[in-house]
Amino acid sequence: MPRRHAATVGRMKSAPVAVMVRLGEIEIEERPVPEPGPGQVLVEVSAVGVCGSDVHWFTEGRIGEIVVNGPLVLGHEAAGVVRALGPGVSRLSPGQRVALEPGVPCRRCRACRSGHYNLCPDIRFFATPPVDGAFARYVVHDEDFAHPLPDHVSDDAGALLEPLSVAIWATWKAGISVGDRVLVTGAGPIGLLVTAVAKAAGAVEVVVSDTQQVRLPLAEKMGATSVISTGADKGNGHGASAPSSDTAGRLRSLGADVLIECSGAAAALEVGLRGLRGGARAVVVGMSSESHTPVPLSVLQRREIELTGTFRYANTYPTAISLASSGAVQLDELVTGHYGLDQVATALQAGRQDPLAVKPVVLPGR
Amino acid sequence: MPRRHAATVGRMKSAPVAVMVRLGEIEIEERPVPEPGPGQVLVEVSAVGVCGSDVHWFTEGRIGEIVVNGPLVLGHEAAGVVRALGPGVSRLSPGQRVALEPGVPCRRCRACRSGHYNLCPDIRFFATPPVDGAFARYVVHDEDFAHPLPDHVSDDAGALLEPLSVAIWATWKAGISVGDRVLVTGAGPIGLLVTAVAKAAGAVEVVVSDTQQVRLPLAEKMGATSVISTGADKGNGHGASAPSSDTAGRLRSLGADVLIECSGAAAALEVGLRGLRGGARAVVVGMSSESHTPVPLSVLQRREIELTGTFRYANTYPTAISLASSGAVQLDELVTGHYGLDQVATALQAGRQDPLAVKPVVLPGR
Amino acid sequence: MPRRHAATVGRMKSAPVAVMVRLGEIEIEERPVPEPGPGQVLVEVSAVGVCGSDVHWFTEGRIGEIVVNGPLVLGHEAAGVVRALGPGVSRLSPGQRVALEPGVPCRRCRACRSGHYNLCPDIRFFATPPVDGAFARYVVHDEDFAHPLPDHVSDDAGALLEPLSVAIWATWKAGISVGDRVLVTGAGPIGLLVTAVAKAAGAVEVVVSDTQQVRLPLAEKMGATSVISTGADKGNGHGASAPSSDTAGRLRSLGADVLIECSGAAAALEVGLRGLRGGARAVVVGMSSESHTPVPLSVLQRREIELTGTFRYANTYPTAISLASSGAVQLDELVTGHYGLDQVATALQAGRQDPLAVKPVVLPGR
Amino acid sequence: MPRRHAATVGRMKSAPVAVMVRLGEIEIEERPVPEPGPGQVLVEVSAVGVCGSDVHWFTEGRIGEIVVNGPLVLGHEAAGVVRALGPGVSRLSPGQRVALEPGVPCRRCRACRSGHYNLCPDIRFFATPPVDGAFARYVVHDEDFAHPLPDHVSDDAGALLEPLSVAIWATWKAGISVGDRVLVTGAGPIGLLVTAVAKAAGAVEVVVSDTQQVRLPLAEKMGATSVISTGADKGNGHGASAPSSDTAGRLRSLGADVLIECSGAAAALEVGLRGLRGGARAVVVGMSSESHTPVPLSVLQRREIELTGTFRYANTYPTAISLASSGAVQLDELVTGHYGLDQVATALQAGRQDPLAVKPVVLPGR
Repeated sequence: MPRRHAATVGRMKSAPVAVMVRLGEIEIEERPVPEPGPGQVLVEVSAVGVCGSDVHWFTEGRIGEIVVNGPLVLGHEAAGVVRALGPGVSRLSPGQRVALEPGVPCRRCRACRSGHYNLCPDIRFFATPPVDGAFARYVVHDEDFAHPLPDHVSDDAGALLEPLSVAIWATWKAGISVGDRVLVTGAGPIGLLVTAVAKAAGAVEVVVSDTQQVRLPLAEKMGATSVISTGADKGNGHGASAPSSDTAGRLRSLGADVLIECSGAAAALEVGLRGLRGGARAVVVGMSSESHTPVPLSVLQRREIELTGTFRYANTYPTAISLASSGAVQLDELVTGHYGLDQVATALQAGRQDPLAVKPVVLPGR
Repeated sequence: MPRRHAATVGRMKSAPVAVMVRLGEIEIEERPVPEPGPGQVLVEVSAVGVCGSDVHWFTEGRIGEIVVNGPLVLGHEAAGVVRALGPGVSRLSPGQRVALEPGVPCRRCRACRSGHYNLCPDIRFFATPPVDGAFARYVVHDEDFAHPLPDHVSDDAGALLEPLSVAIWATWKAGISVGDRVLVTGAGPIGLLVTAVAKAAGAVEVVVSDTQQVRLPLAEKMGATSVISTGADKGNGHGASAPSSDTAGRLRSLGADVLIECSGAAAALEVGLRGLRGGARAVVVGMSSESHTPVPLSVLQRREIELTGTFRYANTYPTAISLASSGAVQLDELVTGHYGLDQVATALQAGRQDPLAVKPVVLPGR
Repeated sequence: MPRRHAATVGRMKSAPVAVMVRLGEIEIEERPVPEPGPGQVLVEVSAVGVCGSDVHWFTEGRIGEIVVNGPLVLGHEAAGVVRALGPGVSRLSPGQRVALEPGVPCRRCRACRSGHYNLCPDIRFFATPPVDGAFARYVVHDEDFAHPLPDHVSDDAGALLEPLSVAIWATWKAGISVGDRVLVTGAGPIGLLVTAVAKAAGAVEVVVSDTQQVRLPLAEKMGATSVISTGADKGNGHGASAPSSDTAGRLRSLGADVLIECSGAAAALEVGLRGLRGGARAVVVGMSSESHTPVPLSVLQRREIELTGTFRYANTYPTAISLASSGAVQLDELVTGHYGLDQVATALQAGRQDPLAVKPVVLPGR
Repeated sequence: MPRRHAATVGRMKSAPVAVMVRLGEIEIEERPVPEPGPGQVLVEVSAVGVCGSDVHWFTEGRIGEIVVNGPLVLGHEAAGVVRALGPGVSRLSPGQRVALEPGVPCRRCRACRSGHYNLCPDIRFFATPPVDGAFARYVVHDEDFAHPLPDHVSDDAGALLEPLSVAIWATWKAGISVGDRVLVTGAGPIGLLVTAVAKAAGAVEVVVSDTQQVRLPLAEKMGATSVISTGADKGNGHGASAPSSDTAGRLRSLGADVLIECSGAAAALEVGLRGLRGGARAVVVGMSSESHTPVPLSVLQRREIELTGTFRYANTYPTAISLASSGAVQLDELVTGHYGLDQVATALQAGRQDPLAVKPVVLPGR
């Protein structure tokens, strides 16, 4: 009986979890170590990236129409080590390092059956109420959403496969082809990763704009062939773009094949759309704080631009692992600080205070 | 020398043309019969449909940023008979009935070379300043944009292949598959033709909404499986939709695979988008009178809807001829009145006065 | 506890099953009524179509590399009535009529997760060794692969949604657009259904060829716009095509947009490919009895034809139900005889003796 | 009148051309310098690559069904300098360096209008009978098929944009996505360029096989992540693959996303197809010497592989220039020798004698 739960985790019965008990407040609780069900594994969490959505839950208590009621464990960008196996698990073994794809869908609805499991209405996704996240010592997860990590991919990188997946999905939706010219608006973590993936996908030009000039050198490091500062910083944390007329002119003359909007700002979408050639594609990844965004539909019509939005991702992890493993995308470059489980609140605030604090990472075992 | 121009048109040197001399005013002028250049044919125009854009030029003097300066011949939905051939014409003969595809592109730019000739910046399109249109006794046109008409397709139908092309293009962009459920907002001429084409393309449900209840029976005649009146008529001529909450609820529960927006109304786009399933496609054909339209981007994102707009069409005429010829689309049903060249102004005003005057047709030879 | 198994099926403990005990021999066995597991339903089978693959197992004992070892229940085109629910079933109730999609995939592999569950290596498919089929009084099946049938769709039609799914999948792979010209080679059950679906999908021409002239009137009934007899019958049961040179010439001049090959004959593929325009698509549905087929690759290359094959189908049942329910495809037209469970062997031989015995149906409750 | 022909080329009235006068024989002829027609330019040829098809015409006198009757100028991979402009030329000036896209289509047929101008039945393509090629001091060419070359792209590279276009087209048809695993069979010039483009397009694995082990280091240089020698060399010049069973096993276990077959060998296609995952794409670029190739259709069917072939390319030159200019593809690496116009016969024989003579280049002005 070598794969028994008890044999692996030993006698440990409970372990610490960082719980957001109310708006802006995190407390460490000791909770029972969860038991993996059929097809599930128990994972000891080694690294968890802090995402803008965690910060939103923490500071606002809501994202769009979803409100946090009561205590919630945040954190959904996680990697760890398999420590025990539930019944019927066949592909993983204790000790194996894994990246956790945070959303486990129902597998039975129309969306799941047609391969768009990110649109499953019954998906259970880390840190999305009422499902707890991964700022914890242990989590259980479905075997096939725990992806084995190559040895030379770090724990940090394993966690950051999640935002990398967001970026891969955006580039897939954008249909980037070798030789394309790509415009990325917004140089937050997602914009930076989109830049890197677009470059890896053969884009010969990747132009990155942001309102915060200070972030642009990082964009160049991730592969941008040119960067544009779009004026005074009056936007949200991800770089709302309100370009001066000079900059707008420069953007408009791009004739880009693809726009990937990562700032959530209406102004960025506006100049981005005007910077596209006829027949181009535009993908909106950044989330607006408004319910409606003014869109110049006549531009979409006259140029027959295809506009779409992304919601998380599906089937991206194998590609994410390939890109991280081959070195095509350097995830470790994005990590700007490490925090213990007792420092989750600090980690959540890091980005608010420093525009260069791109990606804080929590190490629950520290 | 049997194909000489002179031999065919005889001694006629000039012929009447209906010219918009200024806003809201049409005058008949006698102009020289044009000479077909290399690869061109001289066509005696037999029927010309009146389009909403003609009405716009006539009553407003502008569409979007394009302003009419000086005299212009309107009319771009035309069929006729070949009367003379320019040098090098090889596929047409005098006497042949043809439908005229109204835009002739440059054939050399990136858009033309990649098959998107509708996006050619140098396209010459009937009745788009400064190019004169087809409310005339004779026009010249490039041979390959004059499509031979089967005998049993009427002159009227030949003219209406043009708006049918708009509808076909919209359904192609929408990627309608057999078994799809389609929502069409707006029951003007384009909405009605989109309805017919969607049905022909295998849609099992085609739901048509309009603010003007009086038009909905026509939608049913064209193939709608159900119709929805979206409340008090306060919209533009094509049926702006400002649905009551009941109707909105009904639309939202559709879970349609495709939306084709043909009204130009922001309210119609709003309820239409909310009526789509995840992964659906939305095509905006109706033109808004505003520069920007408020779009609920979060709906596009959460459902990963693809939104695009259409600008005219490309490579649709063969399909349009097939659909008209096979009877799959009954174009003659749409014709609501015939007018002589001297009645063009009346024809242009018909739709303004009667919401059921769907498609007036001018017969220049009458 | 109204939904208990025992309450519904009553005291019945066992029920008859038609088992192929060895090559060419069927015996009726009394077997225990199966118990539905979690997420499963018990279905009383009302109708089962006979497919060419059933005939193959019965007469040859193998299909390709798969050999039948030991007893097997045949039959995979099934409809029935839900009689009991396993734990956790939420969408079906006892008494509900359902069509059974015969293959239940693993839901966890790469193919399943990306929507191509027909390619799941661990799929359990009726009547594919070692999984028993539906020539039985009762079967159990996963809830979400038992699709509710509208009242006005007959049991026979419910069963024939399975071959209709094969046809829908083929037309999806072929990417048929409204206005297309389609060539179907082979007028067996699948070829006939492909004809009907292609017509429903807006094809303006559907040309059907078969070596057996006697089948062609049925093709016309299903929507063929023209039919071609491809010469002396020396092919397999599905109509191998070895056309005379006249016929070949006629086919070659088609310039069709799509070929759907349903005969399994190399000669049909050859003339079919030569009958396509540049950039066309060809879908091979018919299965060859040979391991390799000589393909004129230079034709594929010079015309840049896309060639693919189909393996069953995925996500087709909702569309199949729509097409059957709306009357777009008349499934009952194909049924050529009914048989009791004790007549399965006769039903399996019907097609061998009469080329017009298109679709025998077994009624296990008769 | 600064752009006059006479002013530019001066008094030169005739110039040397290398003519294949009969099978295997080249003679230098003095021919009149051609006059550029409307929309055309006169180009002084600076470099012309030798292609396998030139070698075929030279040694066999036919390719497929096309036979060379009478004298023909070979050479279609050309770059040069604009020396004079025909009437109406607006985008080029004398002195400008250009790469010549060798096929000029009719611009009016269905294929041209829909963007597939490579399938134009009336295309005029260098060195395809009866159109003369570019082993000449001067050629005339349509302005928009003469693409301006950046300064830092060499003449050799300008010429090799043509085979690079073949490779780009193949990868487009293959739909390579970032993260894909690609199998390339055959390491001739096209296979090597496909390798480089697949790598540039974000493939994380590119496995290249060839029967000639001596070529594999070059494949690695062009970006192959692993190479496979497929046994004894008994194939054609491009590396027919007849793999040993060990190698076949290795290839079969690949589960690649894409196969690009560049050898023309049936054995390579066979193992390549078996090395693909379900739902993969296969593109056949290599031309077989046989009219038919045995294809395991059941593999295509069971795995639903999409198979297509390529014929030249369309709209690839801008991308080719981007890839050459950005350094993503190192074209100069492929050049293995330079020859004068009087050494064309030697250049044509170079590859026959040395498997490493990948790309001889003729410099007509030498």
